Amino acid sequence: MSNFAIIGPGAVGSTIAYDLQHNQPNLKLLGRREQTLNFFVDGDSTNPHQLTVTALSDCHEKFDVIFIAVKIPQLSKVLSKLDHLLHQDTMLILAQNGHGQLSEFTHPFVYQAVVYISGQKEKDKVTHFRDHKLILKDTPQTQALCKKLENTPLKIQLTDDIEAAIWYKLLVNLAINSVTALSRSTASVLTVPGIKNLCENLLREGTEIAKFENVIFEEKIVTEIMTIYEGYPSEMGTSMYYDILEDKPLEIEGIQGFLYNKARLHNLKTPILDTIYPLLLAQQKN
Amino acid sequence: MSNFAIIGPGAVGSTIAYDLQHNQPNLKLLGRREQTLNFFVDGDSTNPHQLTVTALSDCHEKFDVIFIAVKIPQLSKVLSKLDHLLHQDTMLILAQNGHGQLSEFTHPFVYQAVVYISGQKEKDKVTHFRDHKLILKDTPQTQALCKKLENTPLKIQLTDDIEAAIWYKLLVNLAINSVTALSRSTASVLTVPGIKNLCENLLREGTEIAKFENVIFEEKIVTEIMTIYEGYPSEMGTSMYYDILEDKPLEIEGIQGFLYNKARLHNLKTPILDTIYPLLLAQQKN
Repeated sequence: MSNFAIIGPGAVGSTIAYDLQHNQPNLKLLGRREQTLNFFVDGDSTNPHQLTVTALSDCHEKFDVIFIAVKIPQLSKVLSKLDHLLHQDTMLILAQNGHGQLSEFTHPFVYQAVVYISGQKEKDKVTHFRDHKLILKDTPQTQALCKKLENTPLKIQLTDDIEAAIWYKLLVNLAINSVTALSRSTASVLTVPGIKNLCENLLREGTEIAKFENVIFEEKIVTEIMTIYEGYPSEMGTSMYYDILEDKPLEIEGIQGFLYNKARLHNLKTPILDTIYPLLLAQQKN
Repeated sequence: MSNFAIIGPGAVGSTIAYDLQHNQPNLKLLGRREQTLNFFVDGDSTNPHQLTVTALSDCHEKFDVIFIAVKIPQLSKVLSKLDHLLHQDTMLILAQNGHGQLSEFTHPFVYQAVVYISGQKEKDKVTHFRDHKLILKDTPQTQALCKKLENTPLKIQLTDDIEAAIWYKLLVNLAINSVTALSRSTASVLTVPGIKNLCENLLREGTEIAKFENVIFEEKIVTEIMTIYEGYPSEMGTSMYYDILEDKPLEIEGIQGFLYNKARLHNLKTPILDTIYPLLLAQQKN
């Protein structure tokens, strides 16, 4: 475990690259094209750190560990260009929101990471706001990774119940991403009459879907997530909000779309999700 | 009944002015400011007709009939500047979408018109697309109006059940305005998976609210309205779609907001409306 790569030089991938750079000086940050990024860590906007991006197509090494940190709509394309970077024991870590994307992989050692890293990318400037945490399933392989990276700023937390961790994050994303994207407003939208109620009802539908997928949350999860939302600064945008404003592909298939399809599978009534999902789908360009 | 005015030189008001100009050569088209409009009728984009707009503040006549054709968010402002145009028998016709706005009037002779006139205004250019019809409650006063205007292109249809006519149009507006505005798409949004289903469910909620207001529609109204929607050209935008793109105030209080409040009054469960309405509300500027 001595050869690391990160695919996807966005906010998440750049933060992982920054966090691992001293521990893994040969680490490669791979993107569509060669580039130098100015990276600002922990909300500090005065002190840029340079990160070098290598074009994926120019990279001919094989890696022991690859973090895939592209957004959901880019995943299929990355997967089609991945094989030459893999040996038979390569460990792949999908550091991406949503759920259900692991089914697209054929390689054996793939882990879904639950990502707690927030930041934003504009052109060659990446600003990391807060958090340096990935949650992974507890296995001998991830334990070895954890040990290898224990002296880095990246906190890897291992869990026996990765499904619960993935679903929890999925629900956190579900309501706030939906309402900020559809209203094209920052977290300030929570002060509009009816929006908190909408979020609560959408979270209840999500919790019910989780139950039918054998992920059981207590009822108080709704209040808990609403408290998280209320802690957001009102000018904070979500990733789906920024994507919709910039006409970028939206991560809906791994979040709202994943839940919508699960609800159909289990014949659940989810009127709020059934309203939100097609309205988001309608804004997908291409 | 010889003195006519129209307040609001938008698509509806301009069309009424055009339709009545030969029958009522002294008719005044009133707006915020003096202006000359280029009016194109029945989708003909080659042959402009000029319409003169007089500033409301410069008008000191009293009128026998006034059509008020401003959009819902402008109504309160117009009502505060109306008194000097009225004598005790003035007939006021509110030619506006939505329902519930008559409660803002104190004058005795006020009629809600159900408007079937479609068009669009951009700066000083007004394009009328189709229809020249107003539906009004059948009374001796409206019969006299109807007779007076019988040789004009404006068709005035009288009905014994104006509530049913208002609610029907309200429901027609409800779903298509909501989905086009929230998705920022033209009628082409109906081809997105899930959107027709959303419209049908929203129309069912609207029909249920109507029932509790003693306006009974047969169940087939949903199919009937969906058939109307399917007849729309895919590039057609709705008024709420144009308003949202242009950051103008939205007519939601007379449509979705009116229905939302009625649903609360009758303790009805309307999850789709409860999702749509706050998301629209969130986009209201000011």
